Amino acid sequence: MSLFLTTVSVEDAVRTAQSLAGPLPPEEIPLSSVSGRILAADIRADIDIPGFNRSSVDGYAVRSRDTAGASESLPALLRLTGRVAMGEAGYRNLLPDNCFYVPTGGAVPEGADAMVMVEYTESIGEDILVKKPAAHGDNIVLQGEDFKAGSVILLAGTLLSPREIAALAATGKTTVPVVTRPRVGVISTGNELIPVGDVPRGNQVRDINSWMCGAFLKEKGCIPEYYGITGDDRAHLRGVLHKALSFCDAVLISGGSSKDDRDMTADLIRESGEVLVHGIALAPGKPTIIGRANGIPVIGLPGHPASAFVVLLVIARPLLYRMTGQNDQELLTRSLVLGENIPSTRGREDYVRVCIREGKVYPEFGKSGLVNTLIRSDGLVKVPSGMEGLEEGDIVEVILW
Amino acid sequence: MSLFLTTVSVEDAVRTAQSLAGPLPPEEIPLSSVSGRILAADIRADIDIPGFNRSSVDGYAVRSRDTAGASESLPALLRLTGRVAMGEAGYRNLLPDNCFYVPTGGAVPEGADAMVMVEYTESIGEDILVKKPAAHGDNIVLQGEDFKAGSVILLAGTLLSPREIAALAATGKTTVPVVTRPRVGVISTGNELIPVGDVPRGNQVRDINSWMCGAFLKEKGCIPEYYGITGDDRAHLRGVLHKALSFCDAVLISGGSSKDDRDMTADLIRESGEVLVHGIALAPGKPTIIGRANGIPVIGLPGHPASAFVVLLVIARPLLYRMTGQNDQELLTRSLVLGENIPSTRGREDYVRVCIREGKVYPEFGKSGLVNTLIRSDGLVKVPSGMEGLEEGDIVEVILW
Repeated sequence: MSLFLTTVSVEDAVRTAQSLAGPLPPEEIPLSSVSGRILAADIRADIDIPGFNRSSVDGYAVRSRDTAGASESLPALLRLTGRVAMGEAGYRNLLPDNCFYVPTGGAVPEGADAMVMVEYTESIGEDILVKKPAAHGDNIVLQGEDFKAGSVILLAGTLLSPREIAALAATGKTTVPVVTRPRVGVISTGNELIPVGDVPRGNQVRDINSWMCGAFLKEKGCIPEYYGITGDDRAHLRGVLHKALSFCDAVLISGGSSKDDRDMTADLIRESGEVLVHGIALAPGKPTIIGRANGIPVIGLPGHPASAFVVLLVIARPLLYRMTGQNDQELLTRSLVLGENIPSTRGREDYVRVCIREGKVYPEFGKSGLVNTLIRSDGLVKVPSGMEGLEEGDIVEVILW
Repeated sequence: MSLFLTTVSVEDAVRTAQSLAGPLPPEEIPLSSVSGRILAADIRADIDIPGFNRSSVDGYAVRSRDTAGASESLPALLRLTGRVAMGEAGYRNLLPDNCFYVPTGGAVPEGADAMVMVEYTESIGEDILVKKPAAHGDNIVLQGEDFKAGSVILLAGTLLSPREIAALAATGKTTVPVVTRPRVGVISTGNELIPVGDVPRGNQVRDINSWMCGAFLKEKGCIPEYYGITGDDRAHLRGVLHKALSFCDAVLISGGSSKDDRDMTADLIRESGEVLVHGIALAPGKPTIIGRANGIPVIGLPGHPASAFVVLLVIARPLLYRMTGQNDQELLTRSLVLGENIPSTRGREDYVRVCIREGKVYPEFGKSGLVNTLIRSDGLVKVPSGMEGLEEGDIVEVILW
């Protein structure tokens, strides 16, 4: 039993974690519930959108050639032959030197190839004076210009925001195939842990990680299943782990913070599977475990919330995105100038909490395990493993919270 | 009845919208449900966190002076007098030239003022060789260093992410006061509208806005209440509006896209209150209505989804944040170089959909009302009302989707 962990690179750890699972099966749910979900299949337009040539202004449908050379002093004179109402088909035919009134969104009659805004016209009884020449296609959205029937409008793996939901509605999707949300078990281990509602005595600490992990899982489109606290009792943890393994699609075990607890977690994973990674060249987050038990991924997170959070972000997140089938795996970042040196150790990826003040980035050097630096900071700066630190004046990418 | 709208500036419109409502009352909900909610009250730490001097490493608690001058060749020799177990009080007293083993997270015994990492020691029976001097405070988180009893840890108005939830758990909050989520009615008007499940005939179009607005409301922490489609029938819209007004905290009415429909919406708001704004110097989004009916805010959105989305973002969002009590009202932006001129009209704020390609920003000039530009683009660039456009090479702030 070695005292020190054999560490792998962050890149290898992420690849290993992602190899443990694929996207969950699709389910079909109502359009009103898809916000924040991930598309499970490509979506095609069922029909041309719009289904007709649509006016994008209030005005007159004209044949553009009839308005050639029109001006304030010498307007074109057109005869108003009708008005197109909203929701009404517009297949009437426009004859030369005639025009139709069409409201915004209305159908442009056949024969017309431009819309003149009402602001550039004057009406005298049934005659309309057009004071500006119209060009072919002016103010008209052509049939199928928004979406062509049969064309792919959204790809599988797209996160559905209000804008994508607009496209789904436009193309007639009352129900939508989305990836089933993974159920992820959350277990906290450690004799020192007590429920949040209790008052710590001696060196007891409240169970923070269950709730932080749960909220993180929800944010990433998963369903957290809380299995509570287990002490450092092997049989108890084994029982809880098996309950979680039989119900969930993945399990997060946080803590224990001591070497013995970590070995216990690793041992129990090995009993039902294998430990693939035990130690990552990552700070904070070195004592992370990546394994598989009963065929599903199990991640062992450090006990300290601030460390556990970095592991959630850097290691668990890519695994969860693999399970939810989400394409866009980029973290939200912002390039800013570093206002102070950040020392680091070559050979590991350091994630340093930082604050942004007046457009510059400053490290928030909190002692390991402080929760307050998580809420006081604005994000993380990664110091790549090949570097000994970052210098004041460097441009850094801040991973925004 | 004027054909043109009297427009107000975006700033005035936002101020007017925000004046119509304040934060909703608080409700107390379980910690497991607070993700994404807004704190309704300042939160204070109930006790010192940690409640004891806590070791942040696996190693030996020492009196730092006992290790002065220690080195590989001349280690300090200390007597191991015990081991502190996790979850066990650590109030034993450390005598000179003695040490205690303490695991990460364990309580540092009284008398000790530093922790030496196990990596810098060697154990020979009950003797421990310390090969590096420890400084006062090394590897110890002091009692109350994370959160002091009674101090404010989170302010009312904070959006609760996993990090804030960690702080709430640390300070013993099993339930949390959050702002009640506003119920916002969603009504679509226009004779041309049909339900999403129907196939358009003639110049009918599917009701996109109900679902886009609903998803936007959810994203902003509100509960959408869908009232469906009303045609251009005044009595019908009046009935639906009154139903919404009697149940909701605010109402969004989108469309109709024609001048007459807009007047009808404004008239119906006036019947039960007042129209404060009818027309904003904003493109797209000019024909927006801001009013109050039965004492609650009513926003009239343009019928075109792409225009409605800009109004949701620029006008409705600040109102919703006022109602949800959220402090942070900044849009997420990114400074980038413009790759192509954006022409604009002085006297109105233009919001142009843009794409980011190879770090540069390009306008996505879609015809008014195209939905596909909403999903093809990466965000919006605002052209301030005092400018006639933006030039290639300008640094612009992209409002990211």
